[in-house]
Amino acid sequence: MRTGLALRFSADRVEILDQRRLPREELWVDASHPDALIPLLQGLAVRGAPMIGLSAAASLAWASSRCSRTEWEAMAARLRAARPTAVNLMAAVDRMLAAADPVAEAERQFDVDVAAGDAMAEAGAALVPAGANVLTHCNTGALACGGVGTALGVLRRAHTQGKGIHVWVDETRPLLQGARLTTWELRRAGVPYHLIPDGAAAMLMAQGRVDAVFVGADRIARNGDFANKIGTYALAVAAKHHGVPFYCVAPRSTFDPALADGRGIPIEERAAGEVRVDDVSPVYNPAFDVTPGALVTAFVCEDGALRLGADGA
Amino acid sequence: MRTGLALRFSADRVEILDQRRLPREELWVDASHPDALIPLLQGLAVRGAPMIGLSAAASLAWASSRCSRTEWEAMAARLRAARPTAVNLMAAVDRMLAAADPVAEAERQFDVDVAAGDAMAEAGAALVPAGANVLTHCNTGALACGGVGTALGVLRRAHTQGKGIHVWVDETRPLLQGARLTTWELRRAGVPYHLIPDGAAAMLMAQGRVDAVFVGADRIARNGDFANKIGTYALAVAAKHHGVPFYCVAPRSTFDPALADGRGIPIEERAAGEVRVDDVSPVYNPAFDVTPGALVTAFVCEDGALRLGADGA
Repeated sequence: MRTGLALRFSADRVEILDQRRLPREELWVDASHPDALIPLLQGLAVRGAPMIGLSAAASLAWASSRCSRTEWEAMAARLRAARPTAVNLMAAVDRMLAAADPVAEAERQFDVDVAAGDAMAEAGAALVPAGANVLTHCNTGALACGGVGTALGVLRRAHTQGKGIHVWVDETRPLLQGARLTTWELRRAGVPYHLIPDGAAAMLMAQGRVDAVFVGADRIARNGDFANKIGTYALAVAAKHHGVPFYCVAPRSTFDPALADGRGIPIEERAAGEVRVDDVSPVYNPAFDVTPGALVTAFVCEDGALRLGADGA
Repeated sequence: MRTGLALRFSADRVEILDQRRLPREELWVDASHPDALIPLLQGLAVRGAPMIGLSAAASLAWASSRCSRTEWEAMAARLRAARPTAVNLMAAVDRMLAAADPVAEAERQFDVDVAAGDAMAEAGAALVPAGANVLTHCNTGALACGGVGTALGVLRRAHTQGKGIHVWVDETRPLLQGARLTTWELRRAGVPYHLIPDGAAAMLMAQGRVDAVFVGADRIARNGDFANKIGTYALAVAAKHHGVPFYCVAPRSTFDPALADGRGIPIEERAAGEVRVDDVSPVYNPAFDVTPGALVTAFVCEDGALRLGADGA
């Protein structure tokens, strides 16, 4: 049995917290069968790059003793293609396919994520000044991971260290993962915050009211270019303009050694109905954007803070 | 009788199109009495810097023959304070107070705005390249003015000139004036567009898919610093980073000669409920931000395109 804030699983059952219903309702849903999990992944009931991988692994572990190897591999292939941008999903599925004991492998992946969250939180919190106003985007906390999360895990750790921080939470249109999920997590953790419209972040930087930006990532190329929730790139440009440190927090599993740069990252486009208020407007709704590594002050992973050179060294 | 897309008035009656209900419903509401208009202004049933001033003038014209001068001046004072950021409101009310014939003055202001819209459209359209992808923010069209509008009037004119443009419409959180109003106007005018989340604009610039940005203004200081809908400043920073021309379109009535720079512009903060999805999250919800004049490629007003020097000359 493994239990996180939004995923709990054993060889007998996989359940996920339906994040579409937060903050209004805390509803756990059965996601044991991979073909039950896939629509939950695509509908964003389960989201966050690490969590996508962990839930896929848990579901494949459940299925491993319930069908033939051929059927199982077909399920794995369907899961692997459920969402295109985050590399964690592909890596998690590939490790499951290679594992001798799928249940033990899913548990191992969860435990690795928990430990990674702790290590990133510790390394990242050292970068947060006392009394800092820190801005974050989307949700990168315990809802997105097995453990405390990535960027939001850092901020929670800085808070519990007594640094007296305050968090600006981008609402993160169109699906409002900041307004719905990050506020919910910060409130539970007692971390002071204000929710802001995404368009207000640059103005706060101009006013000197943002000391650092911390975001997560869905895939990181060798040169540091990384995909993350739409709006991240605009934040990075604004941070650069104002001289505000910009940190990307992600476990090693988010680095994709097969990609030289961000041009190779497929960007998922989502439905028009997520954005428009009428039924007819044409919409361009990319779920992610790509931020050049050159705009990143440092990456924070399990190994600590890494500053990439221009050549990705 | 004067008739615009969202305001029609005579000495007998003032009506406004309730913009809160667009695009779902086209509902005209009586706004004859200044004390009826004030909550419509504050609730954003009427919005857009020029339209705020025009509707106030129309309402004061209606009231001028229906109460004592003392009562009328008190109404004017209440109207003048209804919204703090746009200078057009204060100027419109002051001109009404100084006018010998309030009804003729309200009609004159409307006619001046219509002529200003035409002049700005003509001057601005000359800056739009053939085949351009142009990005705009909030709503600056006929819903915001007596005539064709400011920035959106420019884009409509470029379209009717056969330039074959395409418009990226920022949804403009939190009140979605882009998603609700600008899409509605562009669709009626047959101008090709796509709606985007505010956070996607910078990415489109990085991809070379934005040839120019056109926005309006609520108040412009002598050095070119200007207040406009929250998110405008972030666009200006992104446009600068990518070398994309950034134009501000506003009539002379939006320039405030009393202000040396943007630090003197009061920024209205609005209710938390416009942003949060729960009932408890603390929210910072500024309606406007201030963009430094140095980030503006040119201002477009009735007199044509003006490029400000660093000293505001």
